[in-house]
Amino acid sequence: MFLLQRLDSSFRKIKGQIANALTLINLGFGALAIIYVFHDQLRVGLLLIAIAAVFDRLDGAAARKFNTTSELGKQLDSLSDIISFGVAPAMLMYQAVLYEFGVTGAIFAIIYIMCGALRLARFNITESHGYYVGLPITAAGCILTFLTLFVNYMPLYVFMFVTIGLSLLMVSPFRVRKI
Amino acid sequence: MFLLQRLDSSFRKIKGQIANALTLINLGFGALAIIYVFHDQLRVGLLLIAIAAVFDRLDGAAARKFNTTSELGKQLDSLSDIISFGVAPAMLMYQAVLYEFGVTGAIFAIIYIMCGALRLARFNITESHGYYVGLPITAAGCILTFLTLFVNYMPLYVFMFVTIGLSLLMVSPFRVRKI
Repeated sequence: MFLLQRLDSSFRKIKGQIANALTLINLGFGALAIIYVFHDQLRVGLLLIAIAAVFDRLDGAAARKFNTTSELGKQLDSLSDIISFGVAPAMLMYQAVLYEFGVTGAIFAIIYIMCGALRLARFNITESHGYYVGLPITAAGCILTFLTLFVNYMPLYVFMFVTIGLSLLMVSPFRVRKI
Repeated sequence: MFLLQRLDSSFRKIKGQIANALTLINLGFGALAIIYVFHDQLRVGLLLIAIAAVFDRLDGAAARKFNTTSELGKQLDSLSDIISFGVAPAMLMYQAVLYEFGVTGAIFAIIYIMCGALRLARFNITESHGYYVGLPITAAGCILTFLTLFVNYMPLYVFMFVTIGLSLLMVSPFRVRKI
């Protein structure tokens, strides 16, 4: 009986940590994406950000399934998101296109990360009622990432507009329904 | 009289945003440091992380001076810290030394960022009573950054130990008095 109780308690603890472990894996893939972008392996960087996005969905699903949404998990989630969908896509877009514009390109990449941080900070302190305010950074990061596939097919200035557009959408007051 | 009231109200609003603006400047310098590390300009990267650290001190001081510590500010502060003292120093150390160790080096850099995120998430949800639990990421990030100055004077494996040592210190339960 005692053994069963101990097993049950351990199992509950493990369930509580599954979502956080998935969040850290998301962060790990985001950080690895930045390293691959460093080595100019942009396609691998893109793939790693996509994998990070899958783990981002999984951690939320796990937290809901096991009913283990926690304040620690929420904080960890934001910190992972700013890396995987803020810094990593910005660096990928910078290395793919924006560096061609010199200082302006660097400033645009930085503005994107700043707006992502503002979006995440605001999200953490507001109650959600079935909708998000402003474009979620996960969506913005994925759009920015996949757009780098079209670098050879569109004029380069388009990517500047998209970067600044996504930045503004993240901090804009418009509402997006949760899916 | 009405004008004075309006001026006073505007001034109060501006004061409220000064700390957050300083936090975003900290983030901006951290992100710029990553870009310079990309371009293999490690000394400039080091300098930019040092400037980010100065702004990190300033934003806390401003929030206390104007008595405008806010939940938004706290969230924004963590998100900036994970970039300026998590990702940026890890990438600087990776580019300076760790890449020589291949996959192991990349894993060490990623573990450092993960531990930094765990430290920040835990800090945000616990009450502080004049001390920190675990080495603050700002301190760890600055130590890692300045150590890159000694790359030519020490065996390379030392930097692996330091990276993992700082990671463990961040998530360790020991207490550091606030200064």
